[in-house]
Amino acid sequence: MHQTTVRVAEGALDANETIAEANRADFDAHGVRVLNLMSAPGAGKTSLLEAALRDTGEVRVGVLEGDVRGSLDADRLAHLHLPVTQINTDPAFGGECHLDANMVRSAIPEIPLAELDLLVIENVGNLVCPAEFTVGEHARWMVSSVAEGEDKPLKYPLMFRTCELVAINKVDLLPHLDFDLAGFRSNLDQVNPEAETLEVSARDGSGVETWRERLLGLAAAG
Amino acid sequence: MHQTTVRVAEGALDANETIAEANRADFDAHGVRVLNLMSAPGAGKTSLLEAALRDTGEVRVGVLEGDVRGSLDADRLAHLHLPVTQINTDPAFGGECHLDANMVRSAIPEIPLAELDLLVIENVGNLVCPAEFTVGEHARWMVSSVAEGEDKPLKYPLMFRTCELVAINKVDLLPHLDFDLAGFRSNLDQVNPEAETLEVSARDGSGVETWRERLLGLAAAG
Repeated sequence: MHQTTVRVAEGALDANETIAEANRADFDAHGVRVLNLMSAPGAGKTSLLEAALRDTGEVRVGVLEGDVRGSLDADRLAHLHLPVTQINTDPAFGGECHLDANMVRSAIPEIPLAELDLLVIENVGNLVCPAEFTVGEHARWMVSSVAEGEDKPLKYPLMFRTCELVAINKVDLLPHLDFDLAGFRSNLDQVNPEAETLEVSARDGSGVETWRERLLGLAAAG
Repeated sequence: MHQTTVRVAEGALDANETIAEANRADFDAHGVRVLNLMSAPGAGKTSLLEAALRDTGEVRVGVLEGDVRGSLDADRLAHLHLPVTQINTDPAFGGECHLDANMVRSAIPEIPLAELDLLVIENVGNLVCPAEFTVGEHARWMVSSVAEGEDKPLKYPLMFRTCELVAINKVDLLPHLDFDLAGFRSNLDQVNPEAETLEVSARDGSGVETWRERLLGLAAAG
């Protein structure tokens, strides 16, 4: 007797994983590496991308923008002349607070995968749910602004735990804040001792070149 | 023939509304006015409360802290010697990104309503889902940090639309940012022309006394 055991997937997160795997297969088939970039609202994801993607060298980069409503971030990136695709998560009432694999799947036909080496997915600004939903990405990074305070890794541990690299942004503000950088690093160490950090300021440009090199380097990582 | 039509409530948001009404009935029975205080992570809700509640005069104030994990904010308020109750939203994986009426309901037995005139509910830091779930409050305010950028009312319209008062926090940072205050006000006006605004800085104390008077004034509003 041939016996097959089917393990039943449980609920929304498992369905999300199934679709995420399909997304990743599509990305891999085109040789596109995908970064899921996450942060709280206003931490500076778009500003960092804007500063870093002015010159992408040999790397062909596209951006997928996730927002509750509007295309403000996509509009800000328009002058870079990169392929930018916008997802809005608000078909209903207040909108979804995160991207999930199925939303990204619905956008894939609009993304010119054959013309890309790297796709940056800028998630909805939120430190909780985006961390729970993989979308088929190969890497997860976040941006954390020093204006948010050093306690954030302890308050939103899953987000900080699932990211390989944390850009500590707006360091130009450090002289004007009570932010405890060593305390932040210690808090991050408690939830994710493996996380790499980069101190950056999209405003004065410090650290941006290093962040840019790491970002473009993702394209070669596969 | 006597005919009765029952309108069937639809889904989670309606169930939430039913429980929120039960919460509000409990608050009203004790003469407690309730504020739902919302913001993005790190906008300064706790710092503002800490600055404002050092002296509550004749008003008996309690705080209900909503966090994914931990009691960092409740601990910060401990020295004020007010009744502080902590809700954690992380029974599962990454945790819930908002408080809902049922979570607040589960906390009510721990809150000394008979000894309070005003209860401040500090919601989870998030600009999307907290706006979708009423918890039985009488007032909705938010805190928006100038470090987050002036585009936030357009990107998270429901949040800004459902709040009566927006505290524009961290104005001490304005000389060090490119934040366009007039642009922020114009964006807010597009989604909520009725919203009142107060410019404050929990760090240097500017505007805090006005915010405090408005906050304590909520207790008398009923």
